[in-house]
Amino acid sequence: MSGRPFLQLPGPTNLPDRILRAMDRPIVDHRGPEFAALTKSLLPGLRAAFGSREGTVVIYPGSGTGGWEAALVNVLAPGDRVLTFSHGQFGVAFAQGARKLGYEVDEVPLRWGQSIPAEEVEARLGADRGARPYRAVFVVHNETSTGVRADVAAIRAAMDAAGHDALLILDAVSSLASMPVRCDEWRVDVALTGSQKGLMLPPGLAVLCVGQRALAIGQEGGSPRNFFDWRPIIRENAVGLFPYTPATMLLFGLREALAMLAEEGWDAVFARHHRLASGVRAAIQAWGEPRILCEDPACYSDSVTSVVLPDGLEEDDVRRVARERFGLVLGNGLGQLKGRVVRIGHLGALNELEVLATVAGVELTLRECGLDLDLGRGVAACQRVFAQGAAVAGAPK
Amino acid sequence: MSGRPFLQLPGPTNLPDRILRAMDRPIVDHRGPEFAALTKSLLPGLRAAFGSREGTVVIYPGSGTGGWEAALVNVLAPGDRVLTFSHGQFGVAFAQGARKLGYEVDEVPLRWGQSIPAEEVEARLGADRGARPYRAVFVVHNETSTGVRADVAAIRAAMDAAGHDALLILDAVSSLASMPVRCDEWRVDVALTGSQKGLMLPPGLAVLCVGQRALAIGQEGGSPRNFFDWRPIIRENAVGLFPYTPATMLLFGLREALAMLAEEGWDAVFARHHRLASGVRAAIQAWGEPRILCEDPACYSDSVTSVVLPDGLEEDDVRRVARERFGLVLGNGLGQLKGRVVRIGHLGALNELEVLATVAGVELTLRECGLDLDLGRGVAACQRVFAQGAAVAGAPK
Amino acid sequence: MSGRPFLQLPGPTNLPDRILRAMDRPIVDHRGPEFAALTKSLLPGLRAAFGSREGTVVIYPGSGTGGWEAALVNVLAPGDRVLTFSHGQFGVAFAQGARKLGYEVDEVPLRWGQSIPAEEVEARLGADRGARPYRAVFVVHNETSTGVRADVAAIRAAMDAAGHDALLILDAVSSLASMPVRCDEWRVDVALTGSQKGLMLPPGLAVLCVGQRALAIGQEGGSPRNFFDWRPIIRENAVGLFPYTPATMLLFGLREALAMLAEEGWDAVFARHHRLASGVRAAIQAWGEPRILCEDPACYSDSVTSVVLPDGLEEDDVRRVARERFGLVLGNGLGQLKGRVVRIGHLGALNELEVLATVAGVELTLRECGLDLDLGRGVAACQRVFAQGAAVAGAPK
Amino acid sequence: MSGRPFLQLPGPTNLPDRILRAMDRPIVDHRGPEFAALTKSLLPGLRAAFGSREGTVVIYPGSGTGGWEAALVNVLAPGDRVLTFSHGQFGVAFAQGARKLGYEVDEVPLRWGQSIPAEEVEARLGADRGARPYRAVFVVHNETSTGVRADVAAIRAAMDAAGHDALLILDAVSSLASMPVRCDEWRVDVALTGSQKGLMLPPGLAVLCVGQRALAIGQEGGSPRNFFDWRPIIRENAVGLFPYTPATMLLFGLREALAMLAEEGWDAVFARHHRLASGVRAAIQAWGEPRILCEDPACYSDSVTSVVLPDGLEEDDVRRVARERFGLVLGNGLGQLKGRVVRIGHLGALNELEVLATVAGVELTLRECGLDLDLGRGVAACQRVFAQGAAVAGAPK
Repeated sequence: MSGRPFLQLPGPTNLPDRILRAMDRPIVDHRGPEFAALTKSLLPGLRAAFGSREGTVVIYPGSGTGGWEAALVNVLAPGDRVLTFSHGQFGVAFAQGARKLGYEVDEVPLRWGQSIPAEEVEARLGADRGARPYRAVFVVHNETSTGVRADVAAIRAAMDAAGHDALLILDAVSSLASMPVRCDEWRVDVALTGSQKGLMLPPGLAVLCVGQRALAIGQEGGSPRNFFDWRPIIRENAVGLFPYTPATMLLFGLREALAMLAEEGWDAVFARHHRLASGVRAAIQAWGEPRILCEDPACYSDSVTSVVLPDGLEEDDVRRVARERFGLVLGNGLGQLKGRVVRIGHLGALNELEVLATVAGVELTLRECGLDLDLGRGVAACQRVFAQGAAVAGAPK
Repeated sequence: MSGRPFLQLPGPTNLPDRILRAMDRPIVDHRGPEFAALTKSLLPGLRAAFGSREGTVVIYPGSGTGGWEAALVNVLAPGDRVLTFSHGQFGVAFAQGARKLGYEVDEVPLRWGQSIPAEEVEARLGADRGARPYRAVFVVHNETSTGVRADVAAIRAAMDAAGHDALLILDAVSSLASMPVRCDEWRVDVALTGSQKGLMLPPGLAVLCVGQRALAIGQEGGSPRNFFDWRPIIRENAVGLFPYTPATMLLFGLREALAMLAEEGWDAVFARHHRLASGVRAAIQAWGEPRILCEDPACYSDSVTSVVLPDGLEEDDVRRVARERFGLVLGNGLGQLKGRVVRIGHLGALNELEVLATVAGVELTLRECGLDLDLGRGVAACQRVFAQGAAVAGAPK
Repeated sequence: MSGRPFLQLPGPTNLPDRILRAMDRPIVDHRGPEFAALTKSLLPGLRAAFGSREGTVVIYPGSGTGGWEAALVNVLAPGDRVLTFSHGQFGVAFAQGARKLGYEVDEVPLRWGQSIPAEEVEARLGADRGARPYRAVFVVHNETSTGVRADVAAIRAAMDAAGHDALLILDAVSSLASMPVRCDEWRVDVALTGSQKGLMLPPGLAVLCVGQRALAIGQEGGSPRNFFDWRPIIRENAVGLFPYTPATMLLFGLREALAMLAEEGWDAVFARHHRLASGVRAAIQAWGEPRILCEDPACYSDSVTSVVLPDGLEEDDVRRVARERFGLVLGNGLGQLKGRVVRIGHLGALNELEVLATVAGVELTLRECGLDLDLGRGVAACQRVFAQGAAVAGAPK
Repeated sequence: MSGRPFLQLPGPTNLPDRILRAMDRPIVDHRGPEFAALTKSLLPGLRAAFGSREGTVVIYPGSGTGGWEAALVNVLAPGDRVLTFSHGQFGVAFAQGARKLGYEVDEVPLRWGQSIPAEEVEARLGADRGARPYRAVFVVHNETSTGVRADVAAIRAAMDAAGHDALLILDAVSSLASMPVRCDEWRVDVALTGSQKGLMLPPGLAVLCVGQRALAIGQEGGSPRNFFDWRPIIRENAVGLFPYTPATMLLFGLREALAMLAEEGWDAVFARHHRLASGVRAAIQAWGEPRILCEDPACYSDSVTSVVLPDGLEEDDVRRVARERFGLVLGNGLGQLKGRVVRIGHLGALNELEVLATVAGVELTLRECGLDLDLGRGVAACQRVFAQGAAVAGAPK
């Protein structure tokens, strides 16, 4: 297929040329001075990405799933109880993974498309008066399967209102560097992300931001662990080294990514994501059908929109036509949404014309799949959002 | 600016990743066996690009201007007469260059936006009965400044009808690999192109296709020349070498470009360019204003459309807003069109969604520059062209 | 520093240009058909690298340490007993890691420089008649800290002679694709490697080859695990997918690496490593001092040589002078060897002239650090090895 | 072949990774502000490379041969007389090219291996009292075919002593950025170079440095010309543009190359080339045979050494064995030296270990071709030069 493809997944996201070039380089000695300087340069920028001045950043070779595991095994002992919420595939998978690791998981079932109700958090924690209270509450900041954002400030307030001292563990995989993550303000104990979303890198890194309390717990407690043990990593990082060979190529890319984000400015990054997401949503609303899965506009995700297909349209057909006819790659429906939903990723390195191309491509695709749709109607709605200039109301705080 | 820019110049065009990777490699010995094999592999594909089985291909480090010079100095003696047509900047610049090289140039003035009238060719040649007849007729296949295509078959027929034996020299810089070039069928004596248009490479190469008659003339005749003398190049190329160090990196890219074009297939390449160009033109016509400069729809260029701005819009403003606000790079007005025209390139590695993004970006730009334009109207017109599928009527033969 | 550096670490190794280019590419959909085909293409080549027709290959984002963990948690239950050998840093670190994961480790202390005595294996296993016998024997095929190779065939024979059914777990991190690894022949139950050694990739992948018995144990047994659980990976790999986002960029590089190894041929790869290593050893022996750490020539490693510095020379000085004066990066002394040893890596993408440059650079460095050394003596010895042509006696089987 | 090849041609030279990365980038608008800034940034660094504060730099897409042509057609009228010296292939080829362009060339025959005798220059010019005196003296600074450097200061003094006002045209193709070029001090009227030597770029650019007198002559005089006419280029360069599409990719590489040279420092660059060349020469002298072609040690080239093979050794065999057995690419014998000479390039991005590898590889090659040579003897001599540290006596001024 001629020209550039449009990879509109909710991650991995498109690699900017600057980042590709930063990684396209000879191997260096990961115990030498050049590399040590690189390591040290990364940590402040990552802390900023997590909205933290005090957190300790830990980088692993791995995926988001590895990040989950690292966030758990350093602070939970076998058998510890965890409260989780299932309103999408990643919440469900996390609960399953935590059980496999030997923790006891209480999974609150929610509608897929619903956000996490703060009052439910408060009620659950308020009622948690047994001998073995919850050791942690796990929150997916952005449910990548449904395009629903959690209101972490409200959840933190609910935890405080319940007077419960459970740890707050935050999955920021598909929110970090796209929507504000405020680990200090929200008193997040452990937050985690991956490289292949807002950080604009290939997959292959998991990154944690660990608060003081979690750090102290991990010092003596936690589960049996070796690869994911953050203690030796933090110790060696102090002089720029790692206890095992890190994924050096991605770290060079990460330096460039952090430089790009700093040049754009965090507020501008968040405003851009909100503007682009608002354009996508305006287009979908202009069509009338298909519709946005996320139930509450206050919880719209600025990194991904899950689109419920009208009856008669199959996810597989839509994604295949988009890919084969237009070079447009859309995300698939996950878990119980399989077959009924396509997901439009709008995060990472992205601009207005790319979003307009995506919207135009989805229109053509839906029409080719048989939907009676006015070509250009969604594009025009999206253009009207973009014509307003930089500031679009309703951005997440 | 986040995301990928849209470089919609009529050349240089976007570099496909495959070509970038093909050039991103260590230097090889340009007198060694690996390189000789490379050289030999390029010539058949280039002949196919020129629509020739019998022509001899010659590659120079250089630009299109270098290609002009090579096309002249090998076949014309100082003082020889040349017939040219001025219906755009490149026709004018060619005439000026040919005069500087010491040839006598008869320049037929035409409206910028008009194509070359075959009857004018026939009339001029029919009347050319003096002692020093025209030695060559020079035709710009695609006037990149105006977006007007010449009907070379008709011009060849006119030359034949006039019974004139002038050489036919064809500038195929911005047509080759975008619209059919048929050197054998049209009996073109020398055709030339550059690397940075339909061949999808960076600028830096000029390529000629030389017919038997021109080859014979160049053997003994021509002007004083050294760098552009094609004789030693053709001689050394027979064993895969060059008489001087060639631009090796671009040649590796050229091999990949020819492979990509062969994979897509020449007919598909031309059909794609016609479809994309038709989409752009449908958008402009849907706006009503601005309008397409090219006067005759039969002569629309499939590689570039020159757009006449309505009164009150300045080219510089439009191009600046497009670039700064939307990362969209448009071509400027050249020569007498300066200030009044922007040019939309739609050639090389390009697909439908990229064109839709371009059209949507031009709409937003014109609106931001003050034009009262229905957002989405042009995009919808363009989408309707693309929704018809591969075949769009009226493609150049 | 001008020119190319000489990175002579025992890993990460130099990235060939072909592999760099294979990774320097846009992101693809890791759930799409192009990627699924990639995944499926990798597994046969990896099996061949492990010397296995029947093994199941599992790829993780991670490091060698991650590979260790994967090799343990899938087959050992908490509290299981493991027999290990400490004749270098990686044996020691493995034992420590296994303890941290909750296994009971019996660590046989050996001299650093000694190989693993098969008779010791037989004796230990023969005496292991308790209620909780060893569940696994862990062998480092190539002790990267000392440059000592283990005779795995002899160890397997010793295990058989003892009539013990412990699992044989093999760390092939710095041997795979440099020296023969024969998982089927040696009946290795789990072997593991990393990407950044003989596979010529950047760090970031751990790869396992799992035999039938281990696979069966892992089906129901093992320790609590999630990220390193190979069951969902094997299940998804059957259709070319992964249960979580894999390190896609490295996988594209891996495909190229396997193609390069197949083009060279496995026997030629091993012969080349042996020839290059023999050259390095001949140089060191010609100097007289410093000397090779490995005690037994039959156990010389073909991927790394640890060199014991004479009294008066400090490792830090030697490595600094080599790096700053000559752009030559040597490996450091690890563990109890710190300060007394430098390591010369000679594995991965490497040829004779690069080794000669390395030897010449070490000579200059040692001389500059004060050692009275005849310049050129080691180089000449190394050249004499290379002048013999391809076959050098004594290659590992 | 595994590992990195050693491309020891006297150009093209090895591309540093930094330069590869600088060129591996998307196309930009060559009429836009980013590109204009690039153009303007290049000219001061190039002037410095030519040793000129007052010269005007002109960049062409092309090769060194194109540079010759540009240097002539802008200042010489058809039929003008030029004095040249033939002591190698490039002097001969220049004379031939100048004749083809219509100039009258007086070619002083010299031995190949001899330098240009200043007294001969003075005698020729002193005797030049006719009606049509020489308009130009052409000097090859570094005869790439023989490895002989000209003493340009002495030649300038000879021209002055003769009281002749011929222009001094200097071919600095294989000297620039390797040995001092001092256009202002030597009052060079036009100097020229290519991109693929000391500038460490791929081939594809010719660069001129034009003095005030030449500039004035070119304003009204010169030969018919268009592509090579420097007037429009200089005019457009004033605002960062070019009259035709420049070879943009190489210009991005050129910016990086100039930055690298500035970081190293011109004196350090020249000292490094002299040190490396001295090492190569010491090796050859230690062998006894083969011998250095250049007759006068005061005229040794620091960028290339031509090596006369002893009887019984064929150039083709030597180069083939070096390439096929050791991945070492040596330059071929040119013109009358064909078959009898190999050339070792030691310019551009290069360091001591790479030179030692080259010397070791030549030893192995010569031995394999049947020469009775003590392996290591040349390497040791080369090492002794390098062990002396940075300053090696006898560097060109």
